[in-house]
Amino acid sequence: MNIAGIVCEYNPFHSGHLHQLAETRRALGEDTLTVCVMSGDFVQRGEAAMFSKFARAEAACRAGASLVLELPLPWCLSSAEGFAMGAVSLLAAVGCTQLSFGSESGDVETLRKLAREILDPDTQREIAALLQRLPELSYAMARERVLTEKLGECGSLLSQPNNILAVEYLKAIYKKTYPITPVTVKRIGSGHDKAGEQGPKSASELRGLMETGADISEYIPEAALSVYRRERAAGRGRDKAVLETALLSRLRMLDRNVYESLPDGGDGAGARLWKAVREESTLEDIAQAARTKRYPLARMRRMLLCAALGVSAEYTKTLPPYARVLAADSAGCAYLREIDGKSAVPVLTKPAAVRRLDGGAAKVFALGASAHDVYTLQNVTNSDRKCGQDWRNGPVIV
Amino acid sequence: MNIAGIVCEYNPFHSGHLHQLAETRRALGEDTLTVCVMSGDFVQRGEAAMFSKFARAEAACRAGASLVLELPLPWCLSSAEGFAMGAVSLLAAVGCTQLSFGSESGDVETLRKLAREILDPDTQREIAALLQRLPELSYAMARERVLTEKLGECGSLLSQPNNILAVEYLKAIYKKTYPITPVTVKRIGSGHDKAGEQGPKSASELRGLMETGADISEYIPEAALSVYRRERAAGRGRDKAVLETALLSRLRMLDRNVYESLPDGGDGAGARLWKAVREESTLEDIAQAARTKRYPLARMRRMLLCAALGVSAEYTKTLPPYARVLAADSAGCAYLREIDGKSAVPVLTKPAAVRRLDGGAAKVFALGASAHDVYTLQNVTNSDRKCGQDWRNGPVIV
Repeated sequence: MNIAGIVCEYNPFHSGHLHQLAETRRALGEDTLTVCVMSGDFVQRGEAAMFSKFARAEAACRAGASLVLELPLPWCLSSAEGFAMGAVSLLAAVGCTQLSFGSESGDVETLRKLAREILDPDTQREIAALLQRLPELSYAMARERVLTEKLGECGSLLSQPNNILAVEYLKAIYKKTYPITPVTVKRIGSGHDKAGEQGPKSASELRGLMETGADISEYIPEAALSVYRRERAAGRGRDKAVLETALLSRLRMLDRNVYESLPDGGDGAGARLWKAVREESTLEDIAQAARTKRYPLARMRRMLLCAALGVSAEYTKTLPPYARVLAADSAGCAYLREIDGKSAVPVLTKPAAVRRLDGGAAKVFALGASAHDVYTLQNVTNSDRKCGQDWRNGPVIV
Repeated sequence: MNIAGIVCEYNPFHSGHLHQLAETRRALGEDTLTVCVMSGDFVQRGEAAMFSKFARAEAACRAGASLVLELPLPWCLSSAEGFAMGAVSLLAAVGCTQLSFGSESGDVETLRKLAREILDPDTQREIAALLQRLPELSYAMARERVLTEKLGECGSLLSQPNNILAVEYLKAIYKKTYPITPVTVKRIGSGHDKAGEQGPKSASELRGLMETGADISEYIPEAALSVYRRERAAGRGRDKAVLETALLSRLRMLDRNVYESLPDGGDGAGARLWKAVREESTLEDIAQAARTKRYPLARMRRMLLCAALGVSAEYTKTLPPYARVLAADSAGCAYLREIDGKSAVPVLTKPAAVRRLDGGAAKVFALGASAHDVYTLQNVTNSDRKCGQDWRNGPVIV
């Protein structure tokens, strides 16, 4: 039986994701087990997810995923490289044999070539030299330019967000020589975060539609949608105004040195953020005031979340130290029994197991639990706003 | 000319306060200057004031006070004793010749007798012994019992909140031998925080009425009410739900040792609060869960604010290190010129003057500015939510 790993945010789970699960099973066998590593309550674009990690994991399993593991917070809020490295390492740790990912390219060989070329020390040097020569370039732009020069047109694939992530997954596999075979599914419908006219909508479009209360049943599998509807009806999930207050309240109390020791906080970026927090009134204005060409908006948003949630640069120097199960179906549960005691990092299925983690891992878990305590402040009822839920919640079994 | 000091919160300024100003002038001469030391954005009962310190100070000056100084945050959130000591020390520092205060008793001689008796080391020992014998008693109850035993019926005056504060003011004067003559005005209308049928309403009743949107023009001088109306119309001032989120967000991120180093945080109270924060979902539930007979609700509420606003026990071991002017009328401005360079602590009239404070005083100011940055999160418009306003706002001159 193949164990296909998937890196995801499922914010929300939509028909494109369903397509990916189906294509993965079509390519690798209908009995293929799909193991997803999913961002928690906060996602890589530097904002809160529409619904809590438990609800999103449940929705994914109800819609066809077998097992959803949580990517711990520091890697959720990392660069594409750190995000991919953290997620792929967890998939490897629990024994995935394949990694399935969407890409605009759809051609795994070309993506492999790009990944290997980027890992080449010569390429690294050329990118560094170009960045020094043209300080107004972002790292991504410099990389695309160097790769296009070296490999011709296929370098320009790096202008597309899913290709970029795909290349990062492949880099992670090569760097760590994980015994994982990459499989790519060509994305259909709208590009990542872009509006499109036909086919599946992007997650970004769907978030926009959900906020307006539009009918999105065409784009989201009913099994997932019913979970989102239940959450919304119970007053749970993202509330931008409440979260803004909760985060600003924290950001305003933090000292300058906290900002300077953020991931990417050196080089003046942390100090700029600190200053912007002291002068502006919204998260968006703060991120806008602190951005530069080299430090784009999304990174500033992530850094603000890192500051508010206590994620300092030290965390992502290592790899995720445990795999926490958020949701599973019966096949997922069977697989968990199979790998019991054999995984490369502890697999947490019960809240009580958290207490047995070692110091470093316990600290990472506490960080995620503390982020959940901010996330739940967005809920409406007092019982859903209770502190410490992450220490008490077990996985959702569907 | 007499300089009459008044300790107040003006939350809100009502007809009882107007009565006190008038009675003070009647007793000490119509040219008496009234100098008020007022709590800032957060008040001694452990909650946010209805309106910001600037708005409340302006309302007081428009209604007849000459000068309003800010009691710095640590003393606002202190016990009655610390609150009184901090406030009276500031009044002494700026040269007040009298201290005028309301009391249920109205008899300054009896209050003096109580204050002196409490300061007597024998009395202190008897109170301590009684507390040891009956651990279920609060300090206030033990004190009242000992004083009633020693002085007969007049000891029972200590069951009334304004008498208690009055005695604390007198204790501060005696302890520091300030050259200040106490003058008391007998309170009319409802007791402090109690509902009454006739005469002026208490501040507590008026806060309740204001929240329901009731017509309170009968109880609040028009000059003050127009300031409150302006603030409310602009979307400024207390918003309990928003503040709850802002404070809980902070409280959830703080380590146990922060709670244990709070004022009154030793003796297990800080640890109880920390635990309650981790388990409960509202500020009120947290305070209720952590309270004991000796640590009543109001103290728990103050401790929660201290935790969220960064007030540790070290601060109130000293006295307020500066007098910040929040509002003044022309007589108040003239007096400020008169005492320029002669006051016992620096008087801050311009934001720029803050930069010249020494380290300890600057830290106290920064604490209040940071609390203002939480308070302003309750405002509706982005410009009113801007961070750092306390560093830029000058006094309101009416």
